[in-house]
Amino acid sequence: MKINNSSIEISQYANGDSLSINVIQYDSLQSGPHIYFQANVHGAELQGNIVIKLLMEYFKEHEFRGKITFVPFANPMSVNAKIGGYTYGRFNPRTGDNWNRNYIDISQSSRYQIQHSIADFVNEHYESETIITDFKQYLDSVFSSVKNNTEYGLSENKIFNVELQHLAADADVIFDLHTGGRAARYLYAAEYEKSKAMELGFPHTLIIPNEFDGAMDEACFMPWVHLQNELMNHDVQFSIPVQAYTVELGSEETISMDAAKEDMLRLLIFLKGSGQHSQQLEELKGQCYSCHLKNYRSYYAPTGGLCEFHLEPAEHFLKHDKLASIHSFNSKSNEWMTNHVVAKNNGIMINIGTSANISQGETLFQVMEHYHSFEV
Amino acid sequence: MKINNSSIEISQYANGDSLSINVIQYDSLQSGPHIYFQANVHGAELQGNIVIKLLMEYFKEHEFRGKITFVPFANPMSVNAKIGGYTYGRFNPRTGDNWNRNYIDISQSSRYQIQHSIADFVNEHYESETIITDFKQYLDSVFSSVKNNTEYGLSENKIFNVELQHLAADADVIFDLHTGGRAARYLYAAEYEKSKAMELGFPHTLIIPNEFDGAMDEACFMPWVHLQNELMNHDVQFSIPVQAYTVELGSEETISMDAAKEDMLRLLIFLKGSGQHSQQLEELKGQCYSCHLKNYRSYYAPTGGLCEFHLEPAEHFLKHDKLASIHSFNSKSNEWMTNHVVAKNNGIMINIGTSANISQGETLFQVMEHYHSFEV
Amino acid sequence: MKINNSSIEISQYANGDSLSINVIQYDSLQSGPHIYFQANVHGAELQGNIVIKLLMEYFKEHEFRGKITFVPFANPMSVNAKIGGYTYGRFNPRTGDNWNRNYIDISQSSRYQIQHSIADFVNEHYESETIITDFKQYLDSVFSSVKNNTEYGLSENKIFNVELQHLAADADVIFDLHTGGRAARYLYAAEYEKSKAMELGFPHTLIIPNEFDGAMDEACFMPWVHLQNELMNHDVQFSIPVQAYTVELGSEETISMDAAKEDMLRLLIFLKGSGQHSQQLEELKGQCYSCHLKNYRSYYAPTGGLCEFHLEPAEHFLKHDKLASIHSFNSKSNEWMTNHVVAKNNGIMINIGTSANISQGETLFQVMEHYHSFEV
Amino acid sequence: MKINNSSIEISQYANGDSLSINVIQYDSLQSGPHIYFQANVHGAELQGNIVIKLLMEYFKEHEFRGKITFVPFANPMSVNAKIGGYTYGRFNPRTGDNWNRNYIDISQSSRYQIQHSIADFVNEHYESETIITDFKQYLDSVFSSVKNNTEYGLSENKIFNVELQHLAADADVIFDLHTGGRAARYLYAAEYEKSKAMELGFPHTLIIPNEFDGAMDEACFMPWVHLQNELMNHDVQFSIPVQAYTVELGSEETISMDAAKEDMLRLLIFLKGSGQHSQQLEELKGQCYSCHLKNYRSYYAPTGGLCEFHLEPAEHFLKHDKLASIHSFNSKSNEWMTNHVVAKNNGIMINIGTSANISQGETLFQVMEHYHSFEV
Repeated sequence: MKINNSSIEISQYANGDSLSINVIQYDSLQSGPHIYFQANVHGAELQGNIVIKLLMEYFKEHEFRGKITFVPFANPMSVNAKIGGYTYGRFNPRTGDNWNRNYIDISQSSRYQIQHSIADFVNEHYESETIITDFKQYLDSVFSSVKNNTEYGLSENKIFNVELQHLAADADVIFDLHTGGRAARYLYAAEYEKSKAMELGFPHTLIIPNEFDGAMDEACFMPWVHLQNELMNHDVQFSIPVQAYTVELGSEETISMDAAKEDMLRLLIFLKGSGQHSQQLEELKGQCYSCHLKNYRSYYAPTGGLCEFHLEPAEHFLKHDKLASIHSFNSKSNEWMTNHVVAKNNGIMINIGTSANISQGETLFQVMEHYHSFEV
Repeated sequence: MKINNSSIEISQYANGDSLSINVIQYDSLQSGPHIYFQANVHGAELQGNIVIKLLMEYFKEHEFRGKITFVPFANPMSVNAKIGGYTYGRFNPRTGDNWNRNYIDISQSSRYQIQHSIADFVNEHYESETIITDFKQYLDSVFSSVKNNTEYGLSENKIFNVELQHLAADADVIFDLHTGGRAARYLYAAEYEKSKAMELGFPHTLIIPNEFDGAMDEACFMPWVHLQNELMNHDVQFSIPVQAYTVELGSEETISMDAAKEDMLRLLIFLKGSGQHSQQLEELKGQCYSCHLKNYRSYYAPTGGLCEFHLEPAEHFLKHDKLASIHSFNSKSNEWMTNHVVAKNNGIMINIGTSANISQGETLFQVMEHYHSFEV
Repeated sequence: MKINNSSIEISQYANGDSLSINVIQYDSLQSGPHIYFQANVHGAELQGNIVIKLLMEYFKEHEFRGKITFVPFANPMSVNAKIGGYTYGRFNPRTGDNWNRNYIDISQSSRYQIQHSIADFVNEHYESETIITDFKQYLDSVFSSVKNNTEYGLSENKIFNVELQHLAADADVIFDLHTGGRAARYLYAAEYEKSKAMELGFPHTLIIPNEFDGAMDEACFMPWVHLQNELMNHDVQFSIPVQAYTVELGSEETISMDAAKEDMLRLLIFLKGSGQHSQQLEELKGQCYSCHLKNYRSYYAPTGGLCEFHLEPAEHFLKHDKLASIHSFNSKSNEWMTNHVVAKNNGIMINIGTSANISQGETLFQVMEHYHSFEV
Repeated sequence: MKINNSSIEISQYANGDSLSINVIQYDSLQSGPHIYFQANVHGAELQGNIVIKLLMEYFKEHEFRGKITFVPFANPMSVNAKIGGYTYGRFNPRTGDNWNRNYIDISQSSRYQIQHSIADFVNEHYESETIITDFKQYLDSVFSSVKNNTEYGLSENKIFNVELQHLAADADVIFDLHTGGRAARYLYAAEYEKSKAMELGFPHTLIIPNEFDGAMDEACFMPWVHLQNELMNHDVQFSIPVQAYTVELGSEETISMDAAKEDMLRLLIFLKGSGQHSQQLEELKGQCYSCHLKNYRSYYAPTGGLCEFHLEPAEHFLKHDKLASIHSFNSKSNEWMTNHVVAKNNGIMINIGTSANISQGETLFQVMEHYHSFEV
């Protein structure tokens, strides 16, 4: 096994300090899949780094096939931005842009001055027998050209997001490790990859459409979806060989070594299924739930106040159950009032707000409704 | 003339305080156009409030026709958010959402559970002789229904943005008063209204496509564009009777009474042309410039450092002119280096960054290129 | 019983909104002590409001003597300041001033242009038999004069802090309800009141010197300490009749109704001891610990990294125990390293950092060392 | 001439990035004074860096005596902290501590566990003929010992502030380069050094007491004041050979090369007077003003609103002049109201607020009153 380290400078501050993305690549020197892990694109979402730490240690000791790319602390602009006692790293503090909504959609070739569109590529390669490798090369050249188109300079977002897209362009499976606020473990998987996603055995899975909305997972799989569609225009059947997942590893602002070991086991089981290794592993058993994104519903605060959240992440509830109580002080009458938030449908509590201090219209929590259940 | 005041509560905090939008409506009790002004949706963009103050005073003294709605300090969540010595009100501090990118697109009827789409409306009314009034009523009912659809609660953004859309739904001309960072006076006008916009005599006009991108002006005019398109499907020719503009009144964090008087004069001249009044006014003469949005270009910092901006807002420049110099300290060599930012094309300096402390990839300034010139 | 509500406007924003402190006073119409409660001076410290809610409900139903003043959500500037998912209300966001370090020290009479110093007061009243009442009147007049000295205007801090000092000036016992970050329940009590403080039966008590350092408790008791000292100069023995405590009710950003009931019970037991009521109460039994402030020690991060905190609040530990482990990524070697933080002495874990994302020199946690133990 | 560069790591972030202070020392290899410059301790205060840049260039070309230490961008934690379009670097965003109020007072030897107090030093050295050199060595050993006392770790503030104090401990003249908000050029000078300060020819000088209040200048000169006092106890007359100044170079968030040239000239004239060089220099002539700190008065906003500031920095005004007008919107009456802020005394406008968006109690501006005038 060979380890390749690289450090990619992505920003430079007024005082001469620079910020870099550190990339560690394990190359087994044997053919096999290329797996890509990044963590901590949002500053407060820490747990993925610890999972990467464990995986880096595991694959130093255990044989595997193919390559593994690790990008811990993928976003140096966000992890260091603490205000008060908390990390302020969900969005660019200068612009408000969510760090996970600004990846570029390369199918919009004119917007990004991409000379060679996916349609152009397919016109030339639809009969190629090495179309997967060819397309990865195409992706590499597209991202290079965007990064080199610096006539008016590149925006901070573009420098950062395109770099990560470029790093992941060669990978077969991409894991973007996030966390929720105060949350269960859950996963975003696209329609086309949902059966494959079940092999991950994640307790909760949200099925998202094969569409682009700016996130890393979409930025990684959508070029392949477009490729499939264009090939269909040439009557070529093509099964997408790449998967990309956003993985939510519990709660932000905290790490847990024990949970990380279980998180790792889940990933190792999946990687074994993908042919990346043949190590002996513990079994993981449990009940899993999935629903479509449209059934992942947010509850908004009907009033400002102090919120008691009655359920913990991953708890199930029934229609009409009391999910939260908001205690409000009426400054006109000087009376206290309590407002109960009641379940509109049966569901599973997934992601809960991080503060009991609530103003009207804030997201209280997010739940799965109309879910399906399966066992692993 | 009658003055109607109303106060619309839009949020309530944990401690019982509530935030309201204050709406002042002047009704001439004579028929005439309905003009709508709002200011300060972004917290640091103050000058529009002063222009509204002057207009409120002017139309107390001077006769007019129709109605005028004034919404100063339109966004109570943003103007009060100061951090250090500056207002932090461009985006929702909880979510990062730009306060001027979250208006809703009512043409997406299913997304917002709007029972009656614009197409439905047109099917029923395409032969109506009062289609303008009918459509304003339709808009009113749409916004009411969105606000009343509170099953899971309404998000803070939705409460705020839909309220403003609702308030403006009856108006014939909508002015959303903003400012740039350190900026010239400029205007966003849609393709369809660009000849009308010339009557405003604004020094700089950016022509934007008839498209929805989340801003107030688009949220106000796009329903009418969709109406026009749907009517065309019934072979009805329809000229859009409503205009909506985003008006950029110079620099943020500052007010100027003298500039406000000129800003007001410009608006009064326009209102006179729209038939809202017949007052005698000073003349305004000057050279004006317009270009398409795609020729409104941002320059991004090629390096971090301390930036000298060599041009003032509204200055013209030639290709190859030195627009800025960035002085960087190299912490490895302990040497200073100066990087000059040179014009790629002839242009006009419009909007300049508010801080000389620059990191790589930050927007330095925005310029008009390939502009047209006309006189007023 | 009579309830007096008042609302004291303390700030006004640019848009015309104003912020007020809401004060609810229960007057038994019988003589007895005056007890004062305020909560939430720091924006994220919520639990005290719920305790006040319960006390307001309790004393509507149960007889008492004297007066009780309640000031929930005492700081309207802080509770509403949320950034990202957390409340940013420990310090004034404009100036950085900690909201609980800017009360004024009235013994510095010239600094605050107080005409009549405590020494002057004592010269006139040292033989008075109603010196307690006289001194409360003196305090009232001092705070009134500071508030009315508006020649150059009053700063935001002074308006706010002096108002709270003024409100509490008549009280016999002052409770300033706070919370820690992620914390045990603990109490600050001054040297002179430490035996009285034991009646509160708080699990952990920090004994602070009889000195002024800007906090509410000190601002309330120090005038009485000065009074005692000045009287001693006239050979008058005087026992301070007023107590003021900073009470830390667990963790910030959360509320718990169950914990609030126990918090209330503790306060009710104390109030009964102070003669404020004679209600039948459950007993509270437990082991309590106290130490001097100098033995309340902070551990600072020896390195940046992701921190596993191995102890929960209120856990005891021995010298050499592993209290935390910091996992750091070395971006030069691309290796992970773990740094264990080991106990320097036996102690009790009191207050723990709210984020596992740690940079070098941040406070990791605070512990009691060299503590005494007693039973209640 | 020899140039010594060093880079002192002062913090390390979770992701492995580290922050350093870069120190450039020019050593003439001839005896002469040691001059120390630091800039940008507050993140938005940029101009001092440019002055350092020019001085670094100047003394590469021109001969001098003694040593010069340059610390541009002295605070890496602050300059990079931008929120919205502005630098948020006046205080530590985690703790609210003003970066220029946390230097340590070494006369409090027990607080900082300094074994050897200044009194101890004087007892041993009061007859020494090399007492200046001896005391510089003493200072060096004190700061070393504080930095090495890491049993419980060192706080971020202590690491940072003590490092700068240590760097400046050997210097004879210390310049801490700051700026105001929107401000004139002015200087803080201590009582004991005020006649020397006049040689700087700064347009405005504030005379501060020989006391410690946490700032760099005080941290640098107070040990010498204590030394002088202790020597007096041994009947030794001692004239303080060290000066330390806080220099305010105009407005924050901006740089000006032209102004920097004049700023440098002023410093070069002073250095020539201090015997550091003998270069030919342009003359600087002008009227200068000084007053005591107690006559440097802040005006606070009597109401919230939008503020027109009628004077520019450095303008003089008379008692009763209108200094500012605050335009407020009354959300109850929906009327506008204007509140004029009128001069209480004759004065000079020095430092003005950076935003016209004002809430009640904010500092509007700071002025010099009862000033003296002198010519240079």
